[in-house]
Amino acid sequence: MTVSRRSVLTGGALAGAGALAGAAGATAAMAQRAEPVLPVVADAPELGSVVVPFHDARQAGVTTEPPAHASFVAFTLPGGTDRRALGRMMRLLSDDAARLTRGEPALGDTDAHLAVLPAGLTVTFGFGPGFYRAAGVTDRRASSVRDLPRFGVDRLEPRWSGGDLLLQICADDPLTVAHAQRMLIKDARPFAAVRWVQIGFRRSPGMHAPGFTQRNVMGQLDGTANPQGEVMDRAVWVTDGPPWLRDSTTLVLRRIRAEMETWDLLSTADKENAVGRRMDSGAPLSGVDERDEPDFAKLDDSGLPAMPDFAHVTRAHVTDPALKILRRPYNYDGAANAAGHPDSGLIFAAYQADIDRQYLPIQKRLAERDLLNEWITPIGSAVFAIPPGCAPGGWIGEQVIG
Amino acid sequence: MTVSRRSVLTGGALAGAGALAGAAGATAAMAQRAEPVLPVVADAPELGSVVVPFHDARQAGVTTEPPAHASFVAFTLPGGTDRRALGRMMRLLSDDAARLTRGEPALGDTDAHLAVLPAGLTVTFGFGPGFYRAAGVTDRRASSVRDLPRFGVDRLEPRWSGGDLLLQICADDPLTVAHAQRMLIKDARPFAAVRWVQIGFRRSPGMHAPGFTQRNVMGQLDGTANPQGEVMDRAVWVTDGPPWLRDSTTLVLRRIRAEMETWDLLSTADKENAVGRRMDSGAPLSGVDERDEPDFAKLDDSGLPAMPDFAHVTRAHVTDPALKILRRPYNYDGAANAAGHPDSGLIFAAYQADIDRQYLPIQKRLAERDLLNEWITPIGSAVFAIPPGCAPGGWIGEQVIG
Repeated sequence: MTVSRRSVLTGGALAGAGALAGAAGATAAMAQRAEPVLPVVADAPELGSVVVPFHDARQAGVTTEPPAHASFVAFTLPGGTDRRALGRMMRLLSDDAARLTRGEPALGDTDAHLAVLPAGLTVTFGFGPGFYRAAGVTDRRASSVRDLPRFGVDRLEPRWSGGDLLLQICADDPLTVAHAQRMLIKDARPFAAVRWVQIGFRRSPGMHAPGFTQRNVMGQLDGTANPQGEVMDRAVWVTDGPPWLRDSTTLVLRRIRAEMETWDLLSTADKENAVGRRMDSGAPLSGVDERDEPDFAKLDDSGLPAMPDFAHVTRAHVTDPALKILRRPYNYDGAANAAGHPDSGLIFAAYQADIDRQYLPIQKRLAERDLLNEWITPIGSAVFAIPPGCAPGGWIGEQVIG
Repeated sequence: MTVSRRSVLTGGALAGAGALAGAAGATAAMAQRAEPVLPVVADAPELGSVVVPFHDARQAGVTTEPPAHASFVAFTLPGGTDRRALGRMMRLLSDDAARLTRGEPALGDTDAHLAVLPAGLTVTFGFGPGFYRAAGVTDRRASSVRDLPRFGVDRLEPRWSGGDLLLQICADDPLTVAHAQRMLIKDARPFAAVRWVQIGFRRSPGMHAPGFTQRNVMGQLDGTANPQGEVMDRAVWVTDGPPWLRDSTTLVLRRIRAEMETWDLLSTADKENAVGRRMDSGAPLSGVDERDEPDFAKLDDSGLPAMPDFAHVTRAHVTDPALKILRRPYNYDGAANAAGHPDSGLIFAAYQADIDRQYLPIQKRLAERDLLNEWITPIGSAVFAIPPGCAPGGWIGEQVIG
């Protein structure tokens, strides 16, 4: 379909647009007439031009430093989806993700000028349990990738839970994220329905020195206990096994509402007791500096443990570095209700090699008796395998369904 | 109310919190025990530390360069609100806005560490027609501050329209905006109900050179025709009159949905004809550079006007610089629906000295026959007076209801 200027002026374009509004038809039409015009890169200072390579043995967007903005998009596969359809979808998605992360327009991109500032864009694909069922390859699903058990603290809402396919789209610029999301949803929608979208943010680029631990919407320094350096490899990635497993990881995504109304009523000291860290420095209550290891044997002046038994950090603590999880959280902030109560919280993304060995023991301890539970409520939950990466010419999922 | 560590550990804090959960009670309790602990400023590079002065003859956040993130919060005043209550509310709000913009915690701030990076924070207050009615000072309302006439293109939804009081909160960091919003809503909610919240974004800091015209979610360079330099003063600000009017301006806030499904079906040439500017450079179709004045007499090769009669730029064009409006738009991007259709568009904020003389003639011409109307739909509309600024010790609105 080509829309001439004359036809636009006489209203013909609109009629044509209406006739093509079906999703699959529209996508096909756009791919046909993608225009080979290269966008003019006007002013593109260093920050906007940052490219994180898409092609690698492991997917990007996991151990890469989390940029300021993220969109998590989950899809539901319709009944009758088969392995071939999933292969076509993943080829399309991988191809456009690679283009967009390089700062190039997607294949069917009709707003190509929005693609020129990748700003560190990463697109990370996750497969939920339903993806493996649809593809008939449940034998290639890592055993820990299944719905989490119900926890007593959970108040899960279907609108934030589950999903057969996940796109985690991250970049230092919100318009870059919005455009990449739009292009990739257009690729996926002939094959799958959007189940939910969660938009998250961290500090803008340049607000903090790199590697600085950020505060979340509740004011806590969040991520101090993350695995560092060489330990990261063992904690996050599967380093051996068959090709569909090696260089993969898993993602537990929890939407955690912050109960700001009651959190606001606590003194700083009470918040520190609930968390187990100082609100100012992030130091454990047994220590002085943020990076000090918590000392659970230390007593305070009143003879109580300096690290309270019920504190979040005490309950979440992991001694073996290889059993740590990689927290990669984003904040969310929806609209306050009429009474002025905030709708804020965390999109808590935890990456680990094995959910059963790493995430679940921590989460069970927290669900049992973490004092912080009084001020946070899990309202969404989803679990995904993050399959290995791919080389140029390859596609994400090829080791699983190829 | 003071919550001790012991009472938290035994569950007493929660009971206490529940008892105080009423909005006014909570606010009062927090103000009483605001802790005089100054937050530790850890790493605060230049960008996070930028302070835009709150106190001035004119409010900030209008002619200041728009930063990356914005929240627009509108309130409805309950029946029985009087001038005295409004005065108390505006004193509280002005005081905390001044603190927050300096990078200091709000008076009742229980998460003080979230206040230390102002990142160019501005808080701009707007009064809707209902504010003047409640205060009994309709004689101090600029005559053009009233509901806009209905336009044929409008599909207005009450959830995005109207409002008696507006807070426009802008900063280069989204967490700064979220925290300031939370603090200011807490100040206002004993007096007014939240009517709607609209969250918007532009490019992250550092993506573009300052003053560079940004693209919107539709890919257009947006804001090229803004008044510049000395003309800005006459176009935006009222420069004489009584104290409640001098140094004031007006804001028309329109939520404009982008019909991305049909927009996506157009070729670049068709988009350029609808807009009247090139998609790559932003130059008018009669010119070469973005800043070239459109030449409406120029004909193209086929003998048609180079600037199509129906193009957005043709219809919106204003010759007299003093009659221009200041466009200060933000993008919005909500969740795509199940079919994958985006929920994107513009939070179109237009500032001008006089709505009747400046905004309305443009909007009437656009509503009559702007070709771009086929791909944009106004779904929200609100009008506010932006009263003069205040000096240290003063408060916004003192010239109106003081």
